[in-house]
Amino acid sequence: MVERVLLEGCFPPIPTPFDGNGRVDHDNLALNLEKWQKTPLNGFLVLGSNGEAVLLKREEKLEIWKTAGQVIGSDHLFIAGTGCNSTVETVELTEKGARLGADAAMVVTPYYYKARMDHKTLVLHYTTIADGSPIPIILYNVPAFTGVDLGAETIIELAQHPNIIGLKESSGNVVKMGQVFYKSGHVFQVLAGSGSFLLPALTVGAVGGVMALAAVAPHPLAEIVECFQNGAMKRARDIQLGLISANAAVTSRFGIAGLKAALDLIGMYGGPVRPPLLPLGKEQKATLEKIMREAGILEGVE
Amino acid sequence: MVERVLLEGCFPPIPTPFDGNGRVDHDNLALNLEKWQKTPLNGFLVLGSNGEAVLLKREEKLEIWKTAGQVIGSDHLFIAGTGCNSTVETVELTEKGARLGADAAMVVTPYYYKARMDHKTLVLHYTTIADGSPIPIILYNVPAFTGVDLGAETIIELAQHPNIIGLKESSGNVVKMGQVFYKSGHVFQVLAGSGSFLLPALTVGAVGGVMALAAVAPHPLAEIVECFQNGAMKRARDIQLGLISANAAVTSRFGIAGLKAALDLIGMYGGPVRPPLLPLGKEQKATLEKIMREAGILEGVE
Amino acid sequence: MVERVLLEGCFPPIPTPFDGNGRVDHDNLALNLEKWQKTPLNGFLVLGSNGEAVLLKREEKLEIWKTAGQVIGSDHLFIAGTGCNSTVETVELTEKGARLGADAAMVVTPYYYKARMDHKTLVLHYTTIADGSPIPIILYNVPAFTGVDLGAETIIELAQHPNIIGLKESSGNVVKMGQVFYKSGHVFQVLAGSGSFLLPALTVGAVGGVMALAAVAPHPLAEIVECFQNGAMKRARDIQLGLISANAAVTSRFGIAGLKAALDLIGMYGGPVRPPLLPLGKEQKATLEKIMREAGILEGVE
Amino acid sequence: MVERVLLEGCFPPIPTPFDGNGRVDHDNLALNLEKWQKTPLNGFLVLGSNGEAVLLKREEKLEIWKTAGQVIGSDHLFIAGTGCNSTVETVELTEKGARLGADAAMVVTPYYYKARMDHKTLVLHYTTIADGSPIPIILYNVPAFTGVDLGAETIIELAQHPNIIGLKESSGNVVKMGQVFYKSGHVFQVLAGSGSFLLPALTVGAVGGVMALAAVAPHPLAEIVECFQNGAMKRARDIQLGLISANAAVTSRFGIAGLKAALDLIGMYGGPVRPPLLPLGKEQKATLEKIMREAGILEGVE
Repeated sequence: MVERVLLEGCFPPIPTPFDGNGRVDHDNLALNLEKWQKTPLNGFLVLGSNGEAVLLKREEKLEIWKTAGQVIGSDHLFIAGTGCNSTVETVELTEKGARLGADAAMVVTPYYYKARMDHKTLVLHYTTIADGSPIPIILYNVPAFTGVDLGAETIIELAQHPNIIGLKESSGNVVKMGQVFYKSGHVFQVLAGSGSFLLPALTVGAVGGVMALAAVAPHPLAEIVECFQNGAMKRARDIQLGLISANAAVTSRFGIAGLKAALDLIGMYGGPVRPPLLPLGKEQKATLEKIMREAGILEGVE
Repeated sequence: MVERVLLEGCFPPIPTPFDGNGRVDHDNLALNLEKWQKTPLNGFLVLGSNGEAVLLKREEKLEIWKTAGQVIGSDHLFIAGTGCNSTVETVELTEKGARLGADAAMVVTPYYYKARMDHKTLVLHYTTIADGSPIPIILYNVPAFTGVDLGAETIIELAQHPNIIGLKESSGNVVKMGQVFYKSGHVFQVLAGSGSFLLPALTVGAVGGVMALAAVAPHPLAEIVECFQNGAMKRARDIQLGLISANAAVTSRFGIAGLKAALDLIGMYGGPVRPPLLPLGKEQKATLEKIMREAGILEGVE
Repeated sequence: MVERVLLEGCFPPIPTPFDGNGRVDHDNLALNLEKWQKTPLNGFLVLGSNGEAVLLKREEKLEIWKTAGQVIGSDHLFIAGTGCNSTVETVELTEKGARLGADAAMVVTPYYYKARMDHKTLVLHYTTIADGSPIPIILYNVPAFTGVDLGAETIIELAQHPNIIGLKESSGNVVKMGQVFYKSGHVFQVLAGSGSFLLPALTVGAVGGVMALAAVAPHPLAEIVECFQNGAMKRARDIQLGLISANAAVTSRFGIAGLKAALDLIGMYGGPVRPPLLPLGKEQKATLEKIMREAGILEGVE
Repeated sequence: MVERVLLEGCFPPIPTPFDGNGRVDHDNLALNLEKWQKTPLNGFLVLGSNGEAVLLKREEKLEIWKTAGQVIGSDHLFIAGTGCNSTVETVELTEKGARLGADAAMVVTPYYYKARMDHKTLVLHYTTIADGSPIPIILYNVPAFTGVDLGAETIIELAQHPNIIGLKESSGNVVKMGQVFYKSGHVFQVLAGSGSFLLPALTVGAVGGVMALAAVAPHPLAEIVECFQNGAMKRARDIQLGLISANAAVTSRFGIAGLKAALDLIGMYGGPVRPPLLPLGKEQKATLEKIMREAGILEGVE
């Protein structure tokens, strides 16, 4: 029997560092992970959307998980992003991730044959993966990337599987988050998929978040969780609202290139993105820096 | 100078009662309003989307506001839904609503020439209306009906107008709600546009909600607001989550016909909808009743 | 029994002329109609989307139809745009339009309660209207304005009604156009809803088009129909392709303000649009003129 | 310099045959290709969307192209589907495809980071690929799978690259097809991406189509092209319209499983799909057979 993995707290979907030649930079990957483990983060999603997983080859993925497995300590969760379009390939990758030390696997909905991804297909897909996986499965819904929206009914059915323990919901649909938590008898672990709605998500039952912003602003996000747990709602609200522009800057507005540039700004390793993604221009970088400064994220950095 | 109108609390967008011949039933309109005023509701939106405003003639609208103006007491807010596709017609209707007693006007985005509703057009539209209105204006964003999504930037600019005091946001975008509250210096009054996300909205700065569910379940919604204000977050959450299915039943799932059937179930007047809207079938009614019973809304009714 | 109305050829959805004070300008309406009747156009849609119908009051609509009924000769079809959100109001307006001389009524899908506009609702809505109408009904599908997409199945069922004779399809879905023509036994009259896909529509069974571009470029559009009928496919193609930019300029790109500015350019009356629609800026006007010149539409005008 | 590759005619995006154990069935792949080469088809897209390319491993892809390269004769075009999310990986796969005999490469738009796929990014992506490719590149736009819509402006700019020779447009946007053909000076080779709009596409300048239906109904599709070229427009129309239901059955309605089941019905090898795709149920198979029979596709088969 699989032991229950607790998903409480803040997790960044870590970006994959590349060197100047476009190769995975394992030294900086390890260095970043070491630095992050000194912050209040509770663990790491390795090879999510922000990890440029779809731009990596299979061998690169395994090597990245290998490094992550070596560097991430037992006091932090290692979540491997293993989902791809093929059920069989997802099963295989999940197995590999587990062997390389992952505590859980996050599985994005298949995203190419969108019109075919109905309730029945998705239930069978995830059930097959969960049945075959040595580690617990976390559903991952991110319509902005996939064009597929995992519905409440499907999630509620999948939540009954003993090896499916949670959901990363990136759509911002707090009603669905509340609904699936409620219908699972308060057992299913919901994670906010963006730092922009962490607090509202917590109020309807979420236990934490997997948020790009957590890679550059772990402290304020962790403080939101803490304030919420202590009933300091006004303080939680003020932190949350002060982070919205910064959150957009490292997600919808400037994308992964923005997240990496933000890491560079705080003295960690961001580095280049892989094509077709483009680096930020000079003006975009200046805007990013201004937003981060206003959000207080650069305090103590310089 | 216009006195500040406070939008705190729970407001139903009241449905328009029709008699068996399809005519507006003013007696039951008055009766419903009298009953609602004995609940913890803080006021009423008269002729919003749920009021079948787009299915009414101009004269019918004025008569409904007249009745509302006579029945709604000074301790409850009377908000008139005055928005339509034409700027000039909206100005005229807002003036009429004010004369008939409305304390504020809620103005939906124009919805036919969607592609033309850019930032500049919407700012000019709302500014013209607010300039000409004797009562404060509340913006109303409801993409599900309009196909137009009023953006944060536009709202933030409009929030600076002294006669634009708030926003009903029906999209469920809690990030936007938080953002516009924050950028207005915590002054702009945001209202949740659906009972399914009242609590998450409150946590990011909303002051209340205009919610179809409030017409049939005023007490639990008011209790969410009260619990939130008292810091009883767990109780607030439990009430909120227990209402999600009921909320869907009187909105997205069964529409206005569902809302009216629910009113009939609690001993108020719901009555028929206007074509092309269809009444609920027998099976749908049974489902609705079951959902309402499970949500505790029928307790004490029978 | 209603006599069969033939919809072959080119029809502009005529814009509504306003004077400098924003009032309907009946003199210029009549003048425009007289000029258009000297071109190869086959008739007129009066109060379609391009007629700013949703920005007009009921009385204004009736007066416009009155003028149109007086000016449009028996050799041209007078099609009244009578559709609105309410079934009953559409029935009434259709009756009025017929009395004022309309040969047929074009009825847009209801557009506010989008999610409720399912097959059953739409079939009942249109059947009620067609049953009660003294003139034939033409379905009108324009998702860009309505957010509703009338499906092939619904159209095919409605095509069996003896008083529903055709469809204006503005979505550009040529597959659907072909399908409904085919499934009706080649009887249902399909009209292209835009001048940009007139030729492709003709090749799958359409009999003509209701196209904003027809108001400013009746000759080349009529020539496309003629070439197609004569098998001059290459000539038809060349005219069609040469009109695409001009078509966009008076529709998706610059909207009704663009159409009116184009009328002004060819020496007819365009005039102002009603708010919230905005007039073209100076630069936009210059672009429009350039596009029209390149398309050959200004030849012989100056 | 690369010799001009002509894309005239009908091309099926061939499905990938799997055996009962889910492995690629090279014998049946070869057998199918041999049979198809005896029909009026002009060539084959190997590893497009219908080839389940996103469900295959890299090594499987190369082996499939190897078989295709051996079996496809010099009188038929071999087009390799080489596009994936990564620019570099697409360049590598295109190089491999060329070595294995492909005459051209079809490159789908990147589909995961949709919001980032703006004009500049796409121009750079395709230019990099075209610069590095030993064989000509065909753009491939299929929003239903990718959630990205390659715009006319981007296509027109890319059409100027000497090594980008055409476009497969699957959206059904005949206006765009006409526009890009026209703006390229009638040089750019546009291919209809579905058998449902082959004829309308031809009339605005397309030279042929890459159509799933071509795998099961090569003769009628080829006849549409022939009729169009001979000016037999009515005959072309009748064939086109008679194929719409069959086309939907092997695409949007039943997907790749439908296409494979249809191949089985005509005595070729369809076989199973890869999970998460599901096989057709019994009832779906019966519906498919009925549709194909009505379209005349099973004539001469049994």
